[in-house]
Amino acid sequence: MHTVREKQKLLARVRRLKGQVEAIERALEGETGCEQVLHLIAGARGAMAGLMAEVVEDHVRTHLVDEEKHPGALDKDAVEQLLDVVRSYLK
Amino acid sequence: MHTVREKQKLLARVRRLKGQVEAIERALEGETGCEQVLHLIAGARGAMAGLMAEVVEDHVRTHLVDEEKHPGALDKDAVEQLLDVVRSYLK
Amino acid sequence: MHTVREKQKLLARVRRLKGQVEAIERALEGETGCEQVLHLIAGARGAMAGLMAEVVEDHVRTHLVDEEKHPGALDKDAVEQLLDVVRSYLK
Amino acid sequence: MHTVREKQKLLARVRRLKGQVEAIERALEGETGCEQVLHLIAGARGAMAGLMAEVVEDHVRTHLVDEEKHPGALDKDAVEQLLDVVRSYLK
Repeated sequence: MHTVREKQKLLARVRRLKGQVEAIERALEGETGCEQVLHLIAGARGAMAGLMAEVVEDHVRTHLVDEEKHPGALDKDAVEQLLDVVRSYLK
Repeated sequence: MHTVREKQKLLARVRRLKGQVEAIERALEGETGCEQVLHLIAGARGAMAGLMAEVVEDHVRTHLVDEEKHPGALDKDAVEQLLDVVRSYLK
Repeated sequence: MHTVREKQKLLARVRRLKGQVEAIERALEGETGCEQVLHLIAGARGAMAGLMAEVVEDHVRTHLVDEEKHPGALDKDAVEQLLDVVRSYLK
Repeated sequence: MHTVREKQKLLARVRRLKGQVEAIERALEGETGCEQVLHLIAGARGAMAGLMAEVVEDHVRTHLVDEEKHPGALDKDAVEQLLDVVRSYLK
């Protein structure tokens, strides 16, 4: 669905996220305090939002317009404005 | 920036939102209970998110591609997938 | 529902928010570009979230425990941990 | 930090979440389409929010007031109002 390079970046993100979820699991299995668990979940939630923002960004840049058929049709400024909104909501 | 019809819809939304914010103001001025104030804010927040979603939707449909110069360049399915994500986050 | 001083702070917030919503209305009535409208809405949304966070904070500090009947019953550290989460989500 | 029963519920939630994150990983490794990846992430995000809401709920019910020292000090109605807000934001 994406270029090889984008795919590697997304995979690195999702694997980091998996590590964060496993850290929550270990914290809940152990006797970790509530405050620490809340922090771990907040961190994992941020990582999830970052992953979503990156997939959305790839989707916008890659799939909204077929660049081979319609070169230059996607307005770069309008894309940046859209992605600013997406990022500010996915934090 | 948008068609006249879209503009009227957005203006109706923002005026309704203003009414909801004024209701929060009156509730805080009066002796309204906390629970009611929380409900009013939650409602206004939903209206604000709906307004944002609609402006984003117009932006995506109208500004990402100049339809006169590049007719048919914007992939309708990809747009719907994007807007599904936007709406689910702006609730 | 709250102390006079808290009430004044909340009223100042909600009136500022009303001003921000009116600015969105004027922007939509005029020929303001989409980017500017999106920024105005993002700002108003932040103000709304700040208002919600402050009402929730007052609620937690004032209503969860009746301080006159149960002095010292509310755990100050646990309250701060809770409010950290609330603030991080209401941004 | 919590009762055994609550702990089991939280562990079940976090393990389900881990499964959802692994499904995202597999989807990114394979040739899964963008739409499907976006759906998987949206689902995992919902699961994460549900986990957060449950930990916050336990925190409010268990840690804000030491029930042994201050029996009955926590106002049940005020707690429900607070948790309504938390749940509506963590969706």
